[in-house]
Amino acid sequence: MTIAEQMLELAQAAKDASRVLANLSTTVKNELLESMAAGLEEAAPQLATENAKDLSAGREKGLSDAMLDRLALTPAVIQGMADGLREVAALPDPVGEISQMTRRPNGIQVGRMRIPLGVIGIVYESRPNVTADAAGLCLKSGNAVILRGGSEAFHSNQAIGKVLQAAMEKHDLPAAALQVVPTVDRDAVNELLKLEEQIDLIIPRGGEGLIRFVSANSRIPVIKHYKGVCHTFVDVSADLTKAEAIAINEKVQRPGVCNAMETLLIHQGVAQTFVPQIVKAMQDKGVEIRGCERVQELAEGVVPATAEDWPAEYLDLILAVKVVDNLDEAIAHITEYASLHTEVIVTESYQNAQRFLREVNSSVVMVNASSRFSDGNQMGLGAEIGISTTKLHSFGPMGLEDLTTRKFIVMGEGQVRG
Amino acid sequence: MTIAEQMLELAQAAKDASRVLANLSTTVKNELLESMAAGLEEAAPQLATENAKDLSAGREKGLSDAMLDRLALTPAVIQGMADGLREVAALPDPVGEISQMTRRPNGIQVGRMRIPLGVIGIVYESRPNVTADAAGLCLKSGNAVILRGGSEAFHSNQAIGKVLQAAMEKHDLPAAALQVVPTVDRDAVNELLKLEEQIDLIIPRGGEGLIRFVSANSRIPVIKHYKGVCHTFVDVSADLTKAEAIAINEKVQRPGVCNAMETLLIHQGVAQTFVPQIVKAMQDKGVEIRGCERVQELAEGVVPATAEDWPAEYLDLILAVKVVDNLDEAIAHITEYASLHTEVIVTESYQNAQRFLREVNSSVVMVNASSRFSDGNQMGLGAEIGISTTKLHSFGPMGLEDLTTRKFIVMGEGQVRG
Repeated sequence: MTIAEQMLELAQAAKDASRVLANLSTTVKNELLESMAAGLEEAAPQLATENAKDLSAGREKGLSDAMLDRLALTPAVIQGMADGLREVAALPDPVGEISQMTRRPNGIQVGRMRIPLGVIGIVYESRPNVTADAAGLCLKSGNAVILRGGSEAFHSNQAIGKVLQAAMEKHDLPAAALQVVPTVDRDAVNELLKLEEQIDLIIPRGGEGLIRFVSANSRIPVIKHYKGVCHTFVDVSADLTKAEAIAINEKVQRPGVCNAMETLLIHQGVAQTFVPQIVKAMQDKGVEIRGCERVQELAEGVVPATAEDWPAEYLDLILAVKVVDNLDEAIAHITEYASLHTEVIVTESYQNAQRFLREVNSSVVMVNASSRFSDGNQMGLGAEIGISTTKLHSFGPMGLEDLTTRKFIVMGEGQVRG
Repeated sequence: MTIAEQMLELAQAAKDASRVLANLSTTVKNELLESMAAGLEEAAPQLATENAKDLSAGREKGLSDAMLDRLALTPAVIQGMADGLREVAALPDPVGEISQMTRRPNGIQVGRMRIPLGVIGIVYESRPNVTADAAGLCLKSGNAVILRGGSEAFHSNQAIGKVLQAAMEKHDLPAAALQVVPTVDRDAVNELLKLEEQIDLIIPRGGEGLIRFVSANSRIPVIKHYKGVCHTFVDVSADLTKAEAIAINEKVQRPGVCNAMETLLIHQGVAQTFVPQIVKAMQDKGVEIRGCERVQELAEGVVPATAEDWPAEYLDLILAVKVVDNLDEAIAHITEYASLHTEVIVTESYQNAQRFLREVNSSVVMVNASSRFSDGNQMGLGAEIGISTTKLHSFGPMGLEDLTTRKFIVMGEGQVRG
């Protein structure tokens, strides 16, 4: 069997299984997730054995310590997967929700019912815990899932997949509803991305290279975000104590993630005070400041910013800082350089807060709060399957509901069209 | 300038203009739509002159009477465009709606605000009234729009576009927010479909060939439906008077449209009575019946159905009829052959109605009502921009809301992440 035939067979089996998944009761899905969690806990020794194969191959290949760290299935990571599945079980089931039911003039009732998407493909990189985390969210929302992790985590992902499939079988459910692609062949991804008749959605999780590859090669809709170039604007009316606390949190608390701030915009009316204050506070935390000319004039030790700094996603203790004349210039700068991830205004002005919320069309827009809250868990989605910075279907952090769609339902009493 | 450069310039201008459109008040948008309506009424003589060029070229090219009919800008069609724009003005504006606002444990408020998608591309065939109808819906929802109609309607579409752009300019709005592609060159469509950085959504409107072409060649998300193979299942508990009225309405009232019924499934428990009854009623209306063996046994003048009849979209006075053993077989048949458009059950059983609504995952699922209601206007969307039988973003008839997305908004009081 060629790789193409193998992937078609796998995806068709997932599609067939998705019809069973779509009609499971919430109780059965929750019991399944609990069995999966217990299964992972029980299988911890075997998972560690399989993971050791990946770690040893990774060391031979010369993977960095950071990569080996992401790859490791420590007892804490395994417990985290089990806990995560139980947390997903505790979330409300989005499937079956009926909304917007109205009665039309002719008496028919028209509304919407939430249903699973069908088959979701997850393409991800080194962290094997994604296998369980993503599977849990897909199954809870009634979808079948095809998981394709990085080759360096192959044995770990296969082992996790087997444990999860054993739980499916224990509940007499089709194991094809949860499949880990059983080959490291790179062509497998290319073939999967063509199967638009079998797979409803592809979610890539990883670096920009992976996401661009998936997006460029997929015939299936892809939900994605490339990067997070998050801006914070300190308005003339800002409470500068709040502004400093928010900016420091956004830049320093975890600089390597997509919801960290990359560019700080400061209103000229507070620049005299706030530029020296925030530059010193950032420098005390080890942050390199790359500033526009006005910032260079107002503070010490500022690296001159170049054209490359404004669109940059540093993912590091580096911050671009620019003084702007007013809110309009701040919004114009954001409109030009934003990656549509998260933008923040710090202001005490009702009108400017309203304008910023309305006119900045990134996926998350905040007033007086840290961009680090831009996260499915923090914003109340319960768990996050990914984040979308493209506007179709979902925009922003994605939870269970984003793995569903709504069909129309109509209830009549024999009405016909005149 | 090459076609590629020309399309990029046009699309970039649309993107720039979309930022102005996104922030217009509802009042301004409604006044604009009224000006457009009045403009079309005043320009009726010029529109007729330009339309005459298309009609005469069409006659020379040997277009069928039906095609010439679709192409004609009669006074009634022009009035229809103006009335349509006024109806869109009267619809509620979806932009700015705030929903799901909740307070998180740390006190930040998190909700969603509805915003336009940005730039919408409409690719359509011969009816020039689509130019005004689609433009009205895109503008009301705050989107810029690029319209590309069929070459046979080129002069008509250009003339309508000029009238609509004049109204934009009258209100000091950027005319680039509404552009009719100014060339019949086929490459223009290919180039537009590549511009994923400028255009947010493509909606093709026309025959299956056009839709497949657009879908296969677009790098931009496409919302589409290929065809409507709608099923009606007459359950054992059906009120057979209702069943006959519904089935006749679905097949005969307007057989050439996508929400007409193509296959009738009949429960064996009522086949003895209902098969002869409905076959005769259909034949009296000029409908050709293609039946399974059991249908052939129970009624006169039935053409034997072949394997090609079950997936067929006849769009004509032809109906496939099959007797099934029970609801399960009906659902299995629908799952295998449905185009995910519209499926109907006629039943007096509460349980079977519930099962059908839950288990049939087409975009519109009905109980005891004609499939002919599967339409944005009939179902209360106000106006229809298209219909989607793919599940991402929209599923089923699409109205103004489907031309928008939702961003997250967060309102804090200085909170930072711990």
